[in-house]
Amino acid sequence: MDELQLQKLIEAISKGELSLSEAAERINNASVENVDDFAKIDLDRKRRNGFPEVIFGQGKTPEQVAEIFSRLLEHSNQVMATRVNPEMAAYVTTRIEGIQYHARARILMVDKESGRQKIPGVAVVTAGTSDVPVAEEAALTAELMGNQVERVFDVGVAGLHRLMRHLPVLKAARVVVVVAGMEGALVSVVGGLLSCPIIAVPTSVGYGASFNGLAALLAMLNSCASGVSVVNIDNGFGAGVIASRINHLAER
Amino acid sequence: MDELQLQKLIEAISKGELSLSEAAERINNASVENVDDFAKIDLDRKRRNGFPEVIFGQGKTPEQVAEIFSRLLEHSNQVMATRVNPEMAAYVTTRIEGIQYHARARILMVDKESGRQKIPGVAVVTAGTSDVPVAEEAALTAELMGNQVERVFDVGVAGLHRLMRHLPVLKAARVVVVVAGMEGALVSVVGGLLSCPIIAVPTSVGYGASFNGLAALLAMLNSCASGVSVVNIDNGFGAGVIASRINHLAER
Amino acid sequence: MDELQLQKLIEAISKGELSLSEAAERINNASVENVDDFAKIDLDRKRRNGFPEVIFGQGKTPEQVAEIFSRLLEHSNQVMATRVNPEMAAYVTTRIEGIQYHARARILMVDKESGRQKIPGVAVVTAGTSDVPVAEEAALTAELMGNQVERVFDVGVAGLHRLMRHLPVLKAARVVVVVAGMEGALVSVVGGLLSCPIIAVPTSVGYGASFNGLAALLAMLNSCASGVSVVNIDNGFGAGVIASRINHLAER
Amino acid sequence: MDELQLQKLIEAISKGELSLSEAAERINNASVENVDDFAKIDLDRKRRNGFPEVIFGQGKTPEQVAEIFSRLLEHSNQVMATRVNPEMAAYVTTRIEGIQYHARARILMVDKESGRQKIPGVAVVTAGTSDVPVAEEAALTAELMGNQVERVFDVGVAGLHRLMRHLPVLKAARVVVVVAGMEGALVSVVGGLLSCPIIAVPTSVGYGASFNGLAALLAMLNSCASGVSVVNIDNGFGAGVIASRINHLAER
Amino acid sequence: MDELQLQKLIEAISKGELSLSEAAERINNASVENVDDFAKIDLDRKRRNGFPEVIFGQGKTPEQVAEIFSRLLEHSNQVMATRVNPEMAAYVTTRIEGIQYHARARILMVDKESGRQKIPGVAVVTAGTSDVPVAEEAALTAELMGNQVERVFDVGVAGLHRLMRHLPVLKAARVVVVVAGMEGALVSVVGGLLSCPIIAVPTSVGYGASFNGLAALLAMLNSCASGVSVVNIDNGFGAGVIASRINHLAER
Amino acid sequence: MDELQLQKLIEAISKGELSLSEAAERINNASVENVDDFAKIDLDRKRRNGFPEVIFGQGKTPEQVAEIFSRLLEHSNQVMATRVNPEMAAYVTTRIEGIQYHARARILMVDKESGRQKIPGVAVVTAGTSDVPVAEEAALTAELMGNQVERVFDVGVAGLHRLMRHLPVLKAARVVVVVAGMEGALVSVVGGLLSCPIIAVPTSVGYGASFNGLAALLAMLNSCASGVSVVNIDNGFGAGVIASRINHLAER
Amino acid sequence: MDELQLQKLIEAISKGELSLSEAAERINNASVENVDDFAKIDLDRKRRNGFPEVIFGQGKTPEQVAEIFSRLLEHSNQVMATRVNPEMAAYVTTRIEGIQYHARARILMVDKESGRQKIPGVAVVTAGTSDVPVAEEAALTAELMGNQVERVFDVGVAGLHRLMRHLPVLKAARVVVVVAGMEGALVSVVGGLLSCPIIAVPTSVGYGASFNGLAALLAMLNSCASGVSVVNIDNGFGAGVIASRINHLAER
Amino acid sequence: MDELQLQKLIEAISKGELSLSEAAERINNASVENVDDFAKIDLDRKRRNGFPEVIFGQGKTPEQVAEIFSRLLEHSNQVMATRVNPEMAAYVTTRIEGIQYHARARILMVDKESGRQKIPGVAVVTAGTSDVPVAEEAALTAELMGNQVERVFDVGVAGLHRLMRHLPVLKAARVVVVVAGMEGALVSVVGGLLSCPIIAVPTSVGYGASFNGLAALLAMLNSCASGVSVVNIDNGFGAGVIASRINHLAER
Repeated sequence: MDELQLQKLIEAISKGELSLSEAAERINNASVENVDDFAKIDLDRKRRNGFPEVIFGQGKTPEQVAEIFSRLLEHSNQVMATRVNPEMAAYVTTRIEGIQYHARARILMVDKESGRQKIPGVAVVTAGTSDVPVAEEAALTAELMGNQVERVFDVGVAGLHRLMRHLPVLKAARVVVVVAGMEGALVSVVGGLLSCPIIAVPTSVGYGASFNGLAALLAMLNSCASGVSVVNIDNGFGAGVIASRINHLAER
Repeated sequence: MDELQLQKLIEAISKGELSLSEAAERINNASVENVDDFAKIDLDRKRRNGFPEVIFGQGKTPEQVAEIFSRLLEHSNQVMATRVNPEMAAYVTTRIEGIQYHARARILMVDKESGRQKIPGVAVVTAGTSDVPVAEEAALTAELMGNQVERVFDVGVAGLHRLMRHLPVLKAARVVVVVAGMEGALVSVVGGLLSCPIIAVPTSVGYGASFNGLAALLAMLNSCASGVSVVNIDNGFGAGVIASRINHLAER
Repeated sequence: MDELQLQKLIEAISKGELSLSEAAERINNASVENVDDFAKIDLDRKRRNGFPEVIFGQGKTPEQVAEIFSRLLEHSNQVMATRVNPEMAAYVTTRIEGIQYHARARILMVDKESGRQKIPGVAVVTAGTSDVPVAEEAALTAELMGNQVERVFDVGVAGLHRLMRHLPVLKAARVVVVVAGMEGALVSVVGGLLSCPIIAVPTSVGYGASFNGLAALLAMLNSCASGVSVVNIDNGFGAGVIASRINHLAER
Repeated sequence: MDELQLQKLIEAISKGELSLSEAAERINNASVENVDDFAKIDLDRKRRNGFPEVIFGQGKTPEQVAEIFSRLLEHSNQVMATRVNPEMAAYVTTRIEGIQYHARARILMVDKESGRQKIPGVAVVTAGTSDVPVAEEAALTAELMGNQVERVFDVGVAGLHRLMRHLPVLKAARVVVVVAGMEGALVSVVGGLLSCPIIAVPTSVGYGASFNGLAALLAMLNSCASGVSVVNIDNGFGAGVIASRINHLAER
Repeated sequence: MDELQLQKLIEAISKGELSLSEAAERINNASVENVDDFAKIDLDRKRRNGFPEVIFGQGKTPEQVAEIFSRLLEHSNQVMATRVNPEMAAYVTTRIEGIQYHARARILMVDKESGRQKIPGVAVVTAGTSDVPVAEEAALTAELMGNQVERVFDVGVAGLHRLMRHLPVLKAARVVVVVAGMEGALVSVVGGLLSCPIIAVPTSVGYGASFNGLAALLAMLNSCASGVSVVNIDNGFGAGVIASRINHLAER
Repeated sequence: MDELQLQKLIEAISKGELSLSEAAERINNASVENVDDFAKIDLDRKRRNGFPEVIFGQGKTPEQVAEIFSRLLEHSNQVMATRVNPEMAAYVTTRIEGIQYHARARILMVDKESGRQKIPGVAVVTAGTSDVPVAEEAALTAELMGNQVERVFDVGVAGLHRLMRHLPVLKAARVVVVVAGMEGALVSVVGGLLSCPIIAVPTSVGYGASFNGLAALLAMLNSCASGVSVVNIDNGFGAGVIASRINHLAER
Repeated sequence: MDELQLQKLIEAISKGELSLSEAAERINNASVENVDDFAKIDLDRKRRNGFPEVIFGQGKTPEQVAEIFSRLLEHSNQVMATRVNPEMAAYVTTRIEGIQYHARARILMVDKESGRQKIPGVAVVTAGTSDVPVAEEAALTAELMGNQVERVFDVGVAGLHRLMRHLPVLKAARVVVVVAGMEGALVSVVGGLLSCPIIAVPTSVGYGASFNGLAALLAMLNSCASGVSVVNIDNGFGAGVIASRINHLAER
Repeated sequence: MDELQLQKLIEAISKGELSLSEAAERINNASVENVDDFAKIDLDRKRRNGFPEVIFGQGKTPEQVAEIFSRLLEHSNQVMATRVNPEMAAYVTTRIEGIQYHARARILMVDKESGRQKIPGVAVVTAGTSDVPVAEEAALTAELMGNQVERVFDVGVAGLHRLMRHLPVLKAARVVVVVAGMEGALVSVVGGLLSCPIIAVPTSVGYGASFNGLAALLAMLNSCASGVSVVNIDNGFGAGVIASRINHLAER
């Protein structure tokens, strides 16, 4: 409640338009409105930083996704849905004009400002080619949020020289997303070579004692390299969001 | 190998001071030196960003810690050792002048430039008072690395209004470290209220089905709030390093 | 064995209709009948509290479910089968008149007294829309058992203000069922705001390190909020039964 | 903010004692006070239902516990600290007059109204004698919160007749807390015999494949008996709180 | 090597039919034959105790199962294959005359002496109807091995009086196989009532925190009742074999 | 309630010594007595099979153990307490005359009929010397229950010939207890050589990925040899009881 | 960089064909070339030891596999793809001439020098027939790498004499690969009989508490036999590579 | 049984010194002796390859270790005991002359041929200094078995250039033991650079989600580098044995 709102309230009381108890209730509601401000801040953030609302496609029906997508498009120039399988994508693309489906990353996306200037500073690295779908989820997310993304794929530690070749690209980044399955060792190697924050994404790539990504997850959490933090297994989207937030900080 | 080094080498060859095979070896060593540049970059980074080398006290003898600490002090104005128990601290403080022991955080520290200007932007939050030792490890690490740290302790979700009171402090931060044990729910609540990157630190606080921090770790990895990444259980130091890296990015 | 039964027995002995050994056996059987009373109590409970017998559909054939359902309908005005997939539902609905299939909750139900007065006091809350099927299982169960249920869906902690809006509804409840997957943080937040008993239902919603609901389960068991107890992952039915039992206590 | 507070505020503005911006700030603080109402409600709840604040002794120093205990005693007639070891108890009892230490339950307690009428309806059952400390924590918690507690200890299923003997006591209860380690089978047996809500507390009693209570926890979560919900391993306190909340509902 | 074999060997040496080195090799091979005796004992055991060789169908092709089945039928009057799905059964039954498929137990079986006298003493108990397939595997295995089996199905502890009704049957048994999923509590109750050895079979019946039978397995391993030993999850066959071995001991 | 009891009851009613309601209560108590028969059966079993009551020392005080031991000695010629550490043993031996402490097995024991004839048929085998304490617990338990026990220790599969040497002893047994830590392979080898029931006891002997006996437990549950059932990690006592039950069956 | 390269470089500088900065860059690139030498060594190794590059088929499209296969065939006489399902195999075989599909081992292979002399010394052993696919993956890998492989299949410890029969073959080997699921006991038995290095491959063969190979993995890691090291569950390929490396060492 | 033994046997029969049945028994015992040959082979192996018997100190008393050590010294020039704590070492060193205690590796050792020629080819690498005790156990084991060992300690991937410096040493090795805790990434990096077999030893170094070495163990099992096999957590001894076996193969 700011001064202006208060003044109007007092005037309304003095004019008899509002009883004291009504005014007290309105003030208390305004305090709830203060809580509601969190949503407003959300909208501010979206406009300011290019953070769109994102639809988690998994567990929703194609109709639901299409409906939410349409409504979000009324308020936002960037809208994205993640974990969209081809069937869902086929339906939604018939309903929404100009929508793009990135099959590898399982992402549906509209970017009405795709020509805008993007902020450089994000790099996404993978250990193998099987990690690329998760990496693409991260990269497309960061791009939609206004970041220019460098992709450095298939540079796992079994052939370290491949990584070394791309070191200059990584050193130029402000934040590096490392996507790896199996034993996730690439994170520690990259973490030992760079001084920027590293976002590690374990993937479920592997078999047997990888236990669907648990081995990579534990390895990354125990990385001997400083500067590494970890997101959920296969959570490319989450990594993209964090990378974007960090990269935008540097631009403030 | 830069131009100057090359010129000197060629001169030495032409003067006969160096045989071709000696020169080839020196160049190849220089290429190793190139690899060694990573260490040089480390030194650069330290000077530039205030990142000191850090000694992991656990599993070392007091004598070893004292020795390494002394040698690091010759090259760095900030030196820190983590996971130092009181016995180790008692020994090392008798050996190194001006060293400080932070008992709660189990940190030994020398900061020869303690009066220097620090960069604001890091906040460290805890769910309970039992999480404070890990939080202090994060905070002291970030401070030694040149960050000004806001501490917001004991604002767990069982009494949400306590957190709400300190929201302005958190909103002013560029990066927030959230330290919580048990079910780690504070991370999701804070993550839902802020737009900056959040570093979540699960602690081993709890009993029974907390399984020494596993419950909090899994909860944080699955946080429904975007912008959250996670470090190892009780890894306050790691969180402090990442927070500092992110905060310094914003100052570049 | 009550006085009347005893008197009849003695009379039969004295009339020579029953030998002593036959009478002894009958008394011992009666003691087994005492144990059998537990089943009678079950029937009493059903009539008194509206607790119907419930068929666990999973692992049964459609024919078996239809058969058991029919027989239960002879003794009870409320009959329900849970975990019924669409194929099973299609079969059973052709066999039993007036049966209703709630597809989201996977429940088949007959309520011959659907117009009866229900007891208010149960609220069912979900963190996300993906948790709704489990929540509906809980709500329909409680409704069939004679409770009026308030549904407050999709109020997860990532947008805390949504929950705050519905706080009055929750505060009016005598027991609140909280259904959440992923990190299950909603339970702790709700638990911190209310003074009534909370039944937490972890769901298998999530991926990666959610390990099919394990993360939510552990988080809920470790909730820092008092007054929270937990049922099995995805066990909406169990939560509905407990909520109903608690709510009916308050009506006794 | 109630009418009276509002009237005073308006008067202060009109008298020039308060600027509009100061008043707006005060209202906004009051809105935080609205959030603070949760704490007030806590106080109300305590007075109304006899729920005292409770100190978690583990991880605190004896001095901290004594200090917090003293301050709580100024506002509450019932104060309790749980997980207090003998050393901590020895210190705190010298500081606070009239405090009682329940060694088995590891509880420190003051109850200034110990003579008050308590509500019957809570029963606490254990499988073995080793489960008694956890059961006592539950029982003492419930008693301090104003409940009369029936203790039925050492009636594990290996000798089922012992349980049968005490069935009438359990049937008379409104809520039953079942405390069991090892395989926790008692919960299912009790759950099958009663129609009231059951709070199951797994204990860490056992060895080998009990994995410190995990076996009992999983068993209880999978109980085939309806009406069972579960708290954390060894969490007698939590069970006591829930039992009390349920029992008080029935008295409202 | 018995006396006769030795005598023949010596004769062959003395006749020059066998060199010393050939004889030494033959003796050493005979020692391998001694090891081979284990297989002979196997054959003896089969004839003596009615233990047939058993084919594990899972992971084999229908052709392989049919082939092995045919060959075993040449040496044994009882042949059985377990874990046979309907497709495999359909193929094998066309190839082998007089073979029977027990669909619930997924067993293919030929018993050429089905009319022989069987030894009473084995009882197989289940907690629920979903446990029946595993129980049938145990029962059919024991029957084929010459035991008369009492089936007591669906007597789980949620309705204890059902079990009590059948107690005389269980008390008459020499060995009882208890088959239960979910929390497996039936084992402890039965174990507390009987003095004979109990073979517990956890089943994968359940959901969520049953973790495919892990909850029942751990519960059974931790049973507070003496006299209980446990086999692998869903291992009805193994339980049947052990029950038969124990029952035959009593007949020796 | 037998005929005699019934006759006396009817007489008492007819004499007016007992009202009908008193008689009904007595009959119902007698029905509880019927349930109590389980305890009587326990006593019968003890006398008939030599099964003594057993005290689980862990988690009890020395005073409690001494007290229970004394009282059991009044009813039984064999009394045993397991998991008794040296301190507890020192105390109890001063209180109870003629008690023996088996330090390796951590067992306190009185056997007033130590000279009685014991039934041969139980063998206890260990893989290594570190498994001996658990094996001794099994052996002493079986001996106290009237079995003659053959000990075959330290015949692990790393030196298979050691086992082969003792094969005749094992083949002569009616039931074999196999005690092994680490990978527990001895169970499968023994199981492949014998046709009697095998009780497998995993021990917590090992380190690293043995996870305190979990590796051995899982291995034994998955044994490819038929006829193997498993008890809890380090549960020598349980194995001894089962072995005795099986061995006594053969003597019936 | 060798002397010749250096001389050429200096000549180019002195001729003005190369600026100093260009030369410095070339030298630094040469240092990257040094790193690239690892790849060269890879090629050397392949030619020298017959180690081909290997394509991991899982997670790739048939087109990708066909493409990579073709390109590898230009540089290598041996090319292999593992984890190739029948559909993928059907496609690739139409694209590449002379390619062979080993269905059991799921391997696609071209060996242009299939007639070359292979080094004896590798044996591959399995516990059961279900382990054969993994064993074949190991054997075919080792064969392609130039080793002659002895296959000893289905010699599990449940029938130890089968293994004994083949002991001479195993004793003649320089390295033995042991492939086993379930409880993996064969590894310890083989390890106890041989003095050469043993490579243990746990397989996912089993059910219930085998947890998809975890039981075998843990058992093998805890093997009481020295000389055993372990690869990932079902990792026949990895075992084949290691066996080949060891076997070739012996030939150097 | 060789020719000579056979001839003597036949002579004894023909002289009547031995009955046929006695001879048959002796031959059968000799077949057991054949099995006993495995032990003889063990002795051969020891003499031939320098493999000493090794005492596992953990779980034995100092007296036992001293006794076994003494007896082994009568037959072997190399004797070693592992996992010997300082107290045990203090006792044993007073009993056995010339014994050496390696405190870091917790090894007691006598090598009467310490001056003998050792075979080069084994390298032992550690990621950190905390891994050194386990590495020393491996190195000393290999040395006692006649191998010359290169130690390359503290070359973890956080500072990759340190590893690169020592690459020539590693490339010269025939087998490399890599010892690492935390995330164990060093194994994959080393595995990617070398063509010899790698023995990976996970250590329990770490905290939190390292779960006492589980993270490193899983990472190593999932290593993307070929040629890596793994031993139990902290099993330096096992790695040393395997390395020695491999290294000696190359010398045959």
